[in-house]
Amino acid sequence: MPPSVTDQLIDNNRRYAAGEARHDARHPGKQAIKPSRRIAVLGCMDARLDIEDLLGLQTGEAHIIRNAGGVVSEDAIRSLLISHHLLDTKEFIVIQHTRCGMLAFTDDLLKSALEGDRQAGELVSKATSRQFVCRAVASSSPSTFHAFRGAPEALDSPPDVTNLGRLADSVSRSLSAIRNHPWIPLDGDDAISARGFIYDVDTGLLQEVL
Amino acid sequence: MPPSVTDQLIDNNRRYAAGEARHDARHPGKQAIKPSRRIAVLGCMDARLDIEDLLGLQTGEAHIIRNAGGVVSEDAIRSLLISHHLLDTKEFIVIQHTRCGMLAFTDDLLKSALEGDRQAGELVSKATSRQFVCRAVASSSPSTFHAFRGAPEALDSPPDVTNLGRLADSVSRSLSAIRNHPWIPLDGDDAISARGFIYDVDTGLLQEVL
Amino acid sequence: MPPSVTDQLIDNNRRYAAGEARHDARHPGKQAIKPSRRIAVLGCMDARLDIEDLLGLQTGEAHIIRNAGGVVSEDAIRSLLISHHLLDTKEFIVIQHTRCGMLAFTDDLLKSALEGDRQAGELVSKATSRQFVCRAVASSSPSTFHAFRGAPEALDSPPDVTNLGRLADSVSRSLSAIRNHPWIPLDGDDAISARGFIYDVDTGLLQEVL
Amino acid sequence: MPPSVTDQLIDNNRRYAAGEARHDARHPGKQAIKPSRRIAVLGCMDARLDIEDLLGLQTGEAHIIRNAGGVVSEDAIRSLLISHHLLDTKEFIVIQHTRCGMLAFTDDLLKSALEGDRQAGELVSKATSRQFVCRAVASSSPSTFHAFRGAPEALDSPPDVTNLGRLADSVSRSLSAIRNHPWIPLDGDDAISARGFIYDVDTGLLQEVL
Repeated sequence: MPPSVTDQLIDNNRRYAAGEARHDARHPGKQAIKPSRRIAVLGCMDARLDIEDLLGLQTGEAHIIRNAGGVVSEDAIRSLLISHHLLDTKEFIVIQHTRCGMLAFTDDLLKSALEGDRQAGELVSKATSRQFVCRAVASSSPSTFHAFRGAPEALDSPPDVTNLGRLADSVSRSLSAIRNHPWIPLDGDDAISARGFIYDVDTGLLQEVL
Repeated sequence: MPPSVTDQLIDNNRRYAAGEARHDARHPGKQAIKPSRRIAVLGCMDARLDIEDLLGLQTGEAHIIRNAGGVVSEDAIRSLLISHHLLDTKEFIVIQHTRCGMLAFTDDLLKSALEGDRQAGELVSKATSRQFVCRAVASSSPSTFHAFRGAPEALDSPPDVTNLGRLADSVSRSLSAIRNHPWIPLDGDDAISARGFIYDVDTGLLQEVL
Repeated sequence: MPPSVTDQLIDNNRRYAAGEARHDARHPGKQAIKPSRRIAVLGCMDARLDIEDLLGLQTGEAHIIRNAGGVVSEDAIRSLLISHHLLDTKEFIVIQHTRCGMLAFTDDLLKSALEGDRQAGELVSKATSRQFVCRAVASSSPSTFHAFRGAPEALDSPPDVTNLGRLADSVSRSLSAIRNHPWIPLDGDDAISARGFIYDVDTGLLQEVL
Repeated sequence: MPPSVTDQLIDNNRRYAAGEARHDARHPGKQAIKPSRRIAVLGCMDARLDIEDLLGLQTGEAHIIRNAGGVVSEDAIRSLLISHHLLDTKEFIVIQHTRCGMLAFTDDLLKSALEGDRQAGELVSKATSRQFVCRAVASSSPSTFHAFRGAPEALDSPPDVTNLGRLADSVSRSLSAIRNHPWIPLDGDDAISARGFIYDVDTGLLQEVL
């Protein structure tokens, strides 16, 4: 069996972590609409991740889906379904990462702060080193902020056993949510594969969650 | 008034469209969690867009949020709220683009095809030049695919008055949805600004929707 | 095999349609939290449906979930999961109905009208015989209004082959969405059953969609 | 100013709690599609609530929206928007209640249990006095279960200062979420009013949250 595209991208990543530039940052000119490497990547919006760079992808090769956390939200599923069923991708990659902000708050804290709880607002201000300004109204949407499960840690904490465990659990759940969606095919000619990784923002290296 | 970050990125984009590489594709080493240019960009997942490249952003400078269409879904709002209230961004950019797949189908067609309507499946196969495989079950989620409003066109159609009009309407609605969310501040010290663009995937050039 | 609770409720419904009052409208006093008949009903919010009355249910016997259309939204799934996994129901009933408002508009029309399209607003005013007042802003949520699939008809149209077909399709899809959710058990001791009906608001009679 | 419909329903409720049947449980025959009292009620799915009975509403008078908790989810907003903009209601009522199951669990506990955490599953079994059967897969939807904020209590706990406080907060937030939705009009001829209540399932009495 030839190596999958995902395997090749993992190899690219090793070189990226070693200091190489694998991605060409120039406009490639006119290209086809379908991603040429038939892959879709779901990752966090974090400023320290450049998905194309860290996987050595060229413009035109892959769908890139990003949100706060790189979580498998309804919107991520929507994007993956369009990617596969309309635009012919067949490998999905999920990338979450060390030092993620989603490890450092809870939904209740952020909502309470936004809704006008001054004490919660002060906690957010302190945790984020910025002046939080509460809005003092509630909202039905977003219904959740998808803060990662488990006890929150200080913002931008370096990797340790606890937060790596929380991240690995989150990646595993993300893959399970993708694989168990009724509209995601796992077998036959139409099958997709899904693999998940933790990205170390300090070293630039991906580690697969198996 | 000094130029906003958005204005500077528009300038970068002109150079990108002219053939320059503005983005450095190498791993930058350890960086701060907060985006250094205090900006968040929401764009489409399309393979032909490299958001960092086309805006000349460096790794570490901006939150990048991407989904099918670059639409202001609940998940995009969630990500923008986290970006601003926890990680201190103050400018938002929305980027949708020419030749977008979201111009070329309707929610009902794709759902019917997934649910087992053979005729719908054949239409999807034909429209996308790939063998659509229906799943023959319904799903409560995603509740919508956010296909762009208006009559669908052929996949990957070049820009014309009609599809540019549909894109401009979509960008305008996107900005309105951001600006009218109860948790998005529009005035005071905490105010964010939001601007929207259509990206031409062939030329590499952004055009603002005013 | 003894008749299911659903079968008994269908029998109650025949008597309701014949003019009997099967439901006792008085406060029953203190009751247990778990629905005593272990059933959850999902139905439309329509004013002409009293779910307890039309099924001859007594207060305390069943969970009643209602929304515009009686559709299997994410929220309906949420409620059904809580109903089953925490409060021990094992039969689900879905009830949609004739003359439903969801047959008489489209998502795009209502959204355009809300967002400020005057022509759309006039169409809504005319269709509903009330003065529609547009809001002239967009919103990311609700992402869909779940108007029933197919060409819209005049509001409050009597049942005919076309709208009964649309309703039957909608009920079938609703049941499929319930049965294919990863957290809904269909076999073993924990299995739930799901059955669906069209309620005729004029006659008071349920018809099962098989 | 004449009493609002809501005021009249509060009066009905006092009689209901005193033992009167205010609601006629018979099929009313053919009725108009628009709720004749121009009111929409959002309440919990709990089996111990019969919304029409406890408010003394007759079939045909009001839209009834119900979900687990009576929470202002995206789906509840969708239903309220359709109720008002298409079907002409102008008063909204939110009803949450004592002994609500939403006071007795957390989202993380239920999700962990569903996803296969045996310890969480045992806790759920114990808390609910039923054999919880985990599904051992994740799901992207529902993204939240909307368990009420604050520390969970034992299932079906009688009202006390703590849980009444949690309920009052939840009702207040619910009203705020309704009032601050961009598509809900609060002034002019098109204005809606929104009022919220805690229903005591033991006594049958509503208490307004001001």
